[in-house]
Amino acid sequence: MKTRLALLSSLFIIIVFAGCSNSPTPAPPTAGQPAATTAAVADPLPSWNDGPAKQAILDFVKTTTDKANPKFVPPEERIATFDQDGTTWVEHPIYSQVLFAFDRVAEMAPEHPEWKTRMPFKAIVTGDKEAIEKFTLKDIEIIAMATHTGMTAEAFTPLVKDWMAKAKHPKFDKPYPQMIYQPMLEVMKYLRDNGYRTYIVTGGGQDFVRAYAEQVYGIPPEQIIGSALDTQYAYNKDGQGILMRDPKLLLNNNGAGKAEDIYLFIGKHPKAAFGNTDGDRQMLEYTQANGGASLEMLVLHDDAAREFAYGPATGLPDTKVGAFSQALYDEAKAKGWTVISMKNDWKQIFAWQK
Amino acid sequence: MKTRLALLSSLFIIIVFAGCSNSPTPAPPTAGQPAATTAAVADPLPSWNDGPAKQAILDFVKTTTDKANPKFVPPEERIATFDQDGTTWVEHPIYSQVLFAFDRVAEMAPEHPEWKTRMPFKAIVTGDKEAIEKFTLKDIEIIAMATHTGMTAEAFTPLVKDWMAKAKHPKFDKPYPQMIYQPMLEVMKYLRDNGYRTYIVTGGGQDFVRAYAEQVYGIPPEQIIGSALDTQYAYNKDGQGILMRDPKLLLNNNGAGKAEDIYLFIGKHPKAAFGNTDGDRQMLEYTQANGGASLEMLVLHDDAAREFAYGPATGLPDTKVGAFSQALYDEAKAKGWTVISMKNDWKQIFAWQK
Repeated sequence: MKTRLALLSSLFIIIVFAGCSNSPTPAPPTAGQPAATTAAVADPLPSWNDGPAKQAILDFVKTTTDKANPKFVPPEERIATFDQDGTTWVEHPIYSQVLFAFDRVAEMAPEHPEWKTRMPFKAIVTGDKEAIEKFTLKDIEIIAMATHTGMTAEAFTPLVKDWMAKAKHPKFDKPYPQMIYQPMLEVMKYLRDNGYRTYIVTGGGQDFVRAYAEQVYGIPPEQIIGSALDTQYAYNKDGQGILMRDPKLLLNNNGAGKAEDIYLFIGKHPKAAFGNTDGDRQMLEYTQANGGASLEMLVLHDDAAREFAYGPATGLPDTKVGAFSQALYDEAKAKGWTVISMKNDWKQIFAWQK
Repeated sequence: MKTRLALLSSLFIIIVFAGCSNSPTPAPPTAGQPAATTAAVADPLPSWNDGPAKQAILDFVKTTTDKANPKFVPPEERIATFDQDGTTWVEHPIYSQVLFAFDRVAEMAPEHPEWKTRMPFKAIVTGDKEAIEKFTLKDIEIIAMATHTGMTAEAFTPLVKDWMAKAKHPKFDKPYPQMIYQPMLEVMKYLRDNGYRTYIVTGGGQDFVRAYAEQVYGIPPEQIIGSALDTQYAYNKDGQGILMRDPKLLLNNNGAGKAEDIYLFIGKHPKAAFGNTDGDRQMLEYTQANGGASLEMLVLHDDAAREFAYGPATGLPDTKVGAFSQALYDEAKAKGWTVISMKNDWKQIFAWQK
């Protein structure tokens, strides 16, 4: 049981700052390079430009899968962990799970006529942006719990699946499964092809991500580690055992929680870890702490034209959502972690973006 | 965060009742049948006698791996969970982890001269059985936390490995790795050979079991689910990230906790589950609740000659340690779960027992 509530804090941060961030106006995708046609057949990372980031990945895999290399990693230790929001898919202007929660409020509103007059629901139902910006942490807790709990574990999954099929990103007007970064899908596949097991390690809700991760990332539920509710075993009216989603957080899988929960779930250090914010710092530290070969990478969102630009590291805009601080940037440089420039290292960001 | 403390309760129950239970006197192993020589080459379960229990396992595997069968289970859903104490190895006269804790107190005593006069440690250091029997839950908590916490995650593992190599079972005078039930090792291998992933789901300490499970069961750390401390990420004097074992329980993996934690770790229902006590009830219910083919088995300790005899189900002695109640037995019969009679269904219990 963690003291901070990751999910709620995330919701809070995003809502509080979403209104005051300089939401980039939709920009047409750049022409880019036609990745698929120019890439060599043997290139496992065709959406990556040649450079230190791509080379770091290739070198890491070569080193750790070569039995003659002293840094060879046996198959059972080949674990690669990926943060999700901002690392494997878009997190701006706001986290997808926040939109899901808001959309759930709108969808549930007919069953809750009292929400028309009761805050914080009223603000969402009536689209009162000003009121939303003034939400307190308690307001957000009420919204999150009203939309994510009070049902069985099995009833929650289809709600997410339905939303993922219908909801569209406010800037790109595409369903969220198309908001995945193509270069990261290639890294995941390349690592798996070389005996690595890929995990998502997200501050977002574990059950939220599990609902689509197999389809979107090819990653099964047991390899999704996220912020998790303390589900309660109970019996339904037929006497059958069910798991109820109660309004209580068990795991805050962010910051230190990521290292702690990787240990809880896997019991070993990852060999490779990918993140993009200060909430990923401890995961990368924990990956490197085991010694031997390891790969630590951080995505820097420096491409306002093709996606978004925010830091505040390296003087990029400080939007608070998915913050990559200068301190984290400095730690990366000091420790030999690789910073991925979306602008320079990624030939293509989305599969549909030619 | 669960309200009950599984590990501590287990310690409490065992210590309170260990003294007053009728500890069976060591009995010489029976001659038994020479399993290895009479078993057909193709028999995947040579230590099992022909009968309903063995047949249930064979039928389950045949059914769920036959693509033409409507109850076929796709490989990604082939999950089998095993309780440990009393299901895959001996739990009488007391749980191995309790002996580990007591042995740790003895080993740590020279660094703690104050323990010679301070209860509850004094009782263990001086071998005061009468005082041990009077331990309160608070005493047990103090002993468990003193022996299991206050070190890094990485420092704990070798303590368990060392103990497993040296400590011997009080009745059989064998190291604990030889206290594993050979029929269960065969079931695990048979299931794995048929695409099932085997998990240990234990009320015991997750890290305790992870220290030896790969060697003893062939099960990797990420497939061990157990009662778990809320480890804390911190920095050592060199500024390196470490995980500290703090005296706080995060998961009580017993009873309802088993179903809850299987969902937390795996995100799906098992297809097969093996237990032996009322603490396994919900795990078996949760396994069956998903519909389709499933296998639920409970080990009944009815073999005082070759192992131990306790229930209280079917009139067996009620020793409190690893209780298999009549209510659980009745539920098994009503729901089509299979009760394994150690006496009748197991040709051989231990690998060394001919």
